[in-house]
Amino acid sequence: MRPAPARVGDPVDAIDSPALVVEIDAFERNLAAMDAFARSHGVRLRPHAKTHKCSAIALHQVARGAVGVCVQKVGEALALAAGGVRDVFVSNEVIAPTKLARLAALPSDVQLAIAVDSVVGIERLAAAIQASGRQIDVYVEIDAGQGRCGVLAAEAGALARQVVAHDGLRFAGLQAYHGGAQHLRSVAERETAIRHAVAMATAARAAVTSLGIDCPLVTGAGSGSFLLEAASGVYGEIQPGSYAFMDADYARNAPLPGSPRFEHAVFVRSQVIARHAAHAVVDAGHKSHAIDSGLPTVWGRNFEFRNGGDEHGLLHPRGDEPLPAIGDTVWLVPGHCDPTVNLHEHLVAVRGGLDRGVVEAVWPIDARGRLD
Amino acid sequence: MRPAPARVGDPVDAIDSPALVVEIDAFERNLAAMDAFARSHGVRLRPHAKTHKCSAIALHQVARGAVGVCVQKVGEALALAAGGVRDVFVSNEVIAPTKLARLAALPSDVQLAIAVDSVVGIERLAAAIQASGRQIDVYVEIDAGQGRCGVLAAEAGALARQVVAHDGLRFAGLQAYHGGAQHLRSVAERETAIRHAVAMATAARAAVTSLGIDCPLVTGAGSGSFLLEAASGVYGEIQPGSYAFMDADYARNAPLPGSPRFEHAVFVRSQVIARHAAHAVVDAGHKSHAIDSGLPTVWGRNFEFRNGGDEHGLLHPRGDEPLPAIGDTVWLVPGHCDPTVNLHEHLVAVRGGLDRGVVEAVWPIDARGRLD
Repeated sequence: MRPAPARVGDPVDAIDSPALVVEIDAFERNLAAMDAFARSHGVRLRPHAKTHKCSAIALHQVARGAVGVCVQKVGEALALAAGGVRDVFVSNEVIAPTKLARLAALPSDVQLAIAVDSVVGIERLAAAIQASGRQIDVYVEIDAGQGRCGVLAAEAGALARQVVAHDGLRFAGLQAYHGGAQHLRSVAERETAIRHAVAMATAARAAVTSLGIDCPLVTGAGSGSFLLEAASGVYGEIQPGSYAFMDADYARNAPLPGSPRFEHAVFVRSQVIARHAAHAVVDAGHKSHAIDSGLPTVWGRNFEFRNGGDEHGLLHPRGDEPLPAIGDTVWLVPGHCDPTVNLHEHLVAVRGGLDRGVVEAVWPIDARGRLD
Repeated sequence: MRPAPARVGDPVDAIDSPALVVEIDAFERNLAAMDAFARSHGVRLRPHAKTHKCSAIALHQVARGAVGVCVQKVGEALALAAGGVRDVFVSNEVIAPTKLARLAALPSDVQLAIAVDSVVGIERLAAAIQASGRQIDVYVEIDAGQGRCGVLAAEAGALARQVVAHDGLRFAGLQAYHGGAQHLRSVAERETAIRHAVAMATAARAAVTSLGIDCPLVTGAGSGSFLLEAASGVYGEIQPGSYAFMDADYARNAPLPGSPRFEHAVFVRSQVIARHAAHAVVDAGHKSHAIDSGLPTVWGRNFEFRNGGDEHGLLHPRGDEPLPAIGDTVWLVPGHCDPTVNLHEHLVAVRGGLDRGVVEAVWPIDARGRLD
């Protein structure tokens, strides 16, 4: 395990490289903007902790008014519960009995919810929950347009009926997240995609209620589309995650009209380790930042970042700005924040900006690497 | 930190998913093939530990006859030294004085080497080493064709002179690794690239010796090209890493004539968590396997793996084979083994095959995440 790359009170220049740094002033403005949005639009906010994987941040979000957090993995739920989070929704399918048993064994004061999209998933969940004697909220996941997990809208009723047949399972509503819509660049494309998601959720809800089963909540939505779900009148809860940090890929989206403004709040601090005629090399390759949504951008400088492998990034000039010198700091905005966070063990929170800030906190990323 | 996904003695079916599994029979055949190659060709073998990041494996390689290992990061050197490895070459540039001080503070029975490609790098290294009172082997890195770190051949002499001017630094030769050559698909392309690397190394060696400085060793080469460097008469040491595990990307290379045969020896065990009309979903997304060199392939099955995001993989049929059922195990061959290993905390070593094998060891990936 890597030692923490900084200590509280360190100046920003003392942070070891490469390190993941939260610009905490921007981060707090992002949280405040989302809090205000959810309050004013009458939807519950359940931020997705897959972005930060950090119980310190999850507790902060809950203290501000979030109802709890989402996670994708049982291991993440365990890590966040160990960190003090008391309301966790595993917004994903879990099939392995050993994983379900671990979830069911969490302290009973942890409010748990989970998504299901199959009969076998419900049966295995019911067996694990029955053994524990606890109760769990169950959301039937529908395919809201992503084509990944989730049943067709018409199938939601049958699964809801399967859920309510089990004592330990409480049918809590529908999980209807359209991940594929989040990064559609134009407003029109996202509107079309979420119109589809809302239609699927509406149809699924009807399929459930037609069986005489109450459908208390539709939950879903991410940072690229949450305005649309919130405006639908169908969704009662939104699950954005990336809004807290933002990343280079989200910055390429055309903003929805009326959207709160979110700022880049997470950066990789890198150092120039080599400089040659046409390029400089920094000590941050794709072992320090995820590349699934594209390469990082170089913050405040006019260089193109090119992939130099696991441990190296290449900076090429895009204009007249001279290349940085060996030893210089270069700040990178990750292409995709969630899997970038997963590559690090600590978030270094800096107050006062990236130029002259001071380390205010070092947050362990305690759900990092929880693939289980 | 994730708990180990298996215990010694577990049957293969009991390994938690997703998990990184070493098929130890294939792994040992890979090691034996490379050992035999190096012996018969009269080159030193210094495997690159960037592949496995694991001191248990590094010690195994050294016990078989490797002279030591390479790493890319000071943090990796610290982790492997803590695990008992006693000969480590940081085959990369290090500029931060704090990092150099950490390296210099390693126990004096750890034989250290490092690469340099700048005057400032040499001066900072010399200062750190002088403060420690130890001696370190220094390799001047040349750009052997990759266009990343490394000076031009003609500049190597001046840097070698700079190195020998410092008491604590021993000029040990040239680092001449052509990373870009490793994955050129055709034999002809790789031959051309390594011909260039050999020419650059030859010219750099001449530039050094023309100043009256002995050049003891040229080191470099990876799993895609090591036959060519070994045959050159110029390289005295090879640094392959991926041969131990192999990955889907290396499997796409046309093999060099006379190359030992390497087998896939590392796999991601995944489980089907959802199944729909046209696809199945496994619990292994790009948080469990690196995608910089392409997506994983599905081992022994005729499905196409599509990226389903951080936590999901999508399996689509490519022929008549029916989709797997919910709960089934699916084995993935990672696109690129090195950064895939970095996503995990343990390597689960299975003896007896992926169908009916038994867990023989669980190796902590103790240099995982050492970006520092």
